[in-house]
Amino acid sequence: MQASQLIKQIEFIKEIDKLKYIQRKTRLFNSDRNENDAEHSWHLAMMTIVLSEHANVPIDVLKVVKMLLIHDIVEIDAGDTFIYDTQKSHDNTVEERVAAERIFGLLPSSQASELLSIWEEFEEQKTAEAKFARAMDRLEPLLQNVSNNGGTWREFEIGFDQVYQKKQAIQYGSESIWAYAEQLLSESVESGILKKTTLQE
Amino acid sequence: MQASQLIKQIEFIKEIDKLKYIQRKTRLFNSDRNENDAEHSWHLAMMTIVLSEHANVPIDVLKVVKMLLIHDIVEIDAGDTFIYDTQKSHDNTVEERVAAERIFGLLPSSQASELLSIWEEFEEQKTAEAKFARAMDRLEPLLQNVSNNGGTWREFEIGFDQVYQKKQAIQYGSESIWAYAEQLLSESVESGILKKTTLQE
Repeated sequence: MQASQLIKQIEFIKEIDKLKYIQRKTRLFNSDRNENDAEHSWHLAMMTIVLSEHANVPIDVLKVVKMLLIHDIVEIDAGDTFIYDTQKSHDNTVEERVAAERIFGLLPSSQASELLSIWEEFEEQKTAEAKFARAMDRLEPLLQNVSNNGGTWREFEIGFDQVYQKKQAIQYGSESIWAYAEQLLSESVESGILKKTTLQE
Repeated sequence: MQASQLIKQIEFIKEIDKLKYIQRKTRLFNSDRNENDAEHSWHLAMMTIVLSEHANVPIDVLKVVKMLLIHDIVEIDAGDTFIYDTQKSHDNTVEERVAAERIFGLLPSSQASELLSIWEEFEEQKTAEAKFARAMDRLEPLLQNVSNNGGTWREFEIGFDQVYQKKQAIQYGSESIWAYAEQLLSESVESGILKKTTLQE
């Protein structure tokens, strides 16, 4: 029994290696190289470990870490969608749901259910853990763009209004981190790396 | 107070981005691209979440996950040392200790102490958590080399004896995973991707 469990788990472990090939739009700090989803997931988990004290309410840190380690695994099948893409919905597409069922479904059934449920919890954004996880997911590219002299904001001509709208979610995870993020956004407009108004479409 | 804590934490978060530039000798599954330390750390954390039931004794999963997410951060300063390097010690060098103090030292003092202590626990290999973490760290490259038709074993002419000696540590974390690993090693010798005897030096 334990041996057959292990075989399934190893299949899952091999499959998720593919996350290292999924390229994000954002770039590493001080670099021209794009970040991949595995690196991104590692960074968000580290951020959670370091920043959890700033959560608006006490959170289950292990659950948030699991959530962030797995949150992009569906992109192995569904691909990465740019957060400012106006044509394609970023969250919770049918494609992502099918991917989640296929990939987590490689695991023994109780683990498959657990990880699928944690992934759904993240997508639904109702619990404190999901909100804090989202805050981390919004904060990292903000830090990267500031560090990269505007990064994807300049590359794709994204203005303050669009960025502010997406980043607001940080406050539901942490008011104090949101205060810091708002300040970074103001400074980015002042320094010219983020345009004050969004271009007319 | 909370704001000054946050500034230090953000400095740490920016600094550890450099882990994404540290190349390991091993390669991604089915690929010629080398793995970097951030991807590796993400994968080991995922393996822990999936495989913790196989630990010889019950383990604190969050602690093992933290341990693995941070275990290679010292390589930002000290670099990666190949596990079969006979000239340079892999573990616990003075260089790594200085790196740990510098990098974790960017954090507020209580967090710096906590992460330094978890890193030391991993290096000392005395607790169940440290042993399970090491088992994960030994298992991943084994899976990669099997998947890559011999991988670093063939590239650097590493024989069965050397590999077996390093992989044995898996048993102290999990006897059942070790049984699986031993079988993989036997099959690798049979299929010819791992040489039966080590070359004379």
